[in-house]
Amino acid sequence: MTRTAAPRDDLASVAGLLKKLDICMLTTRATDGALHGRPMSNNGEVEYDGDSWFFAFSDSRKVREIDADPRTELAFIDTPNGTWVNVEGQATVVRDDPERKRELWQDDLKRWFADGPDDPNVVLIKVSAGHVDAWSGEAEYSLDLNR
Amino acid sequence: MTRTAAPRDDLASVAGLLKKLDICMLTTRATDGALHGRPMSNNGEVEYDGDSWFFAFSDSRKVREIDADPRTELAFIDTPNGTWVNVEGQATVVRDDPERKRELWQDDLKRWFADGPDDPNVVLIKVSAGHVDAWSGEAEYSLDLNR
Repeated sequence: MTRTAAPRDDLASVAGLLKKLDICMLTTRATDGALHGRPMSNNGEVEYDGDSWFFAFSDSRKVREIDADPRTELAFIDTPNGTWVNVEGQATVVRDDPERKRELWQDDLKRWFADGPDDPNVVLIKVSAGHVDAWSGEAEYSLDLNR
Repeated sequence: MTRTAAPRDDLASVAGLLKKLDICMLTTRATDGALHGRPMSNNGEVEYDGDSWFFAFSDSRKVREIDADPRTELAFIDTPNGTWVNVEGQATVVRDDPERKRELWQDDLKRWFADGPDDPNVVLIKVSAGHVDAWSGEAEYSLDLNR
């Protein structure tokens, strides 16, 4: 938001910012073209490497929207600390990886997924960042992560 | 995010939530189909009536993207207070309303628009909400505002 010097392309610094931000808004494109977001719990404890993982029900609107158009955006906002992160990413619905679900599971997810990670109706959404913009204090970051 | 009883459709309550949230992420669709967001200062002091107003430079990427596809999303996140608001809206670039620019101007906007509201390169973006989802504590809101 502030225009300082050339933005830095330092993934480790952005990963440090994301570690403190558990909830983001995941935006998808609806079939009628509207942009639709909903808060999602990000696994803040994992070191960010460009991939974000979320749990979802296989019959949810977001899964349908990602199947139809995988281009998504993640918004992380921490205004009191002057930190904002925007991730443009390609989402994939991962339906058959029970081991990964168990690995990423955290107990507070039971609030939304009462039957835990082994519920076959629970899938993973993986958002692979193509581009990340971040602002924190006076620093600005712009990362291309096309892998 | 939590599924409680039927969500409430109470604009005044959502306006109360938004009053405390100055910065949101404005997401637009790029011409290549990617979803792109950036933090924007929302005029938190105005009572929310379904319209959000932002200042922008007329030659900025967001103005070009809105001209090409006016469907936008606003994400408001206040995780420490358990508040999240998602606005799906139609954006309009308002180019010729100097009076409105002066009315909405706040001095801290000088940080981004050094020449103030009378700069002819400064325009307004108006986002008219079609649908709003909000979560705050145990309350959930779902508002259709197609006007």
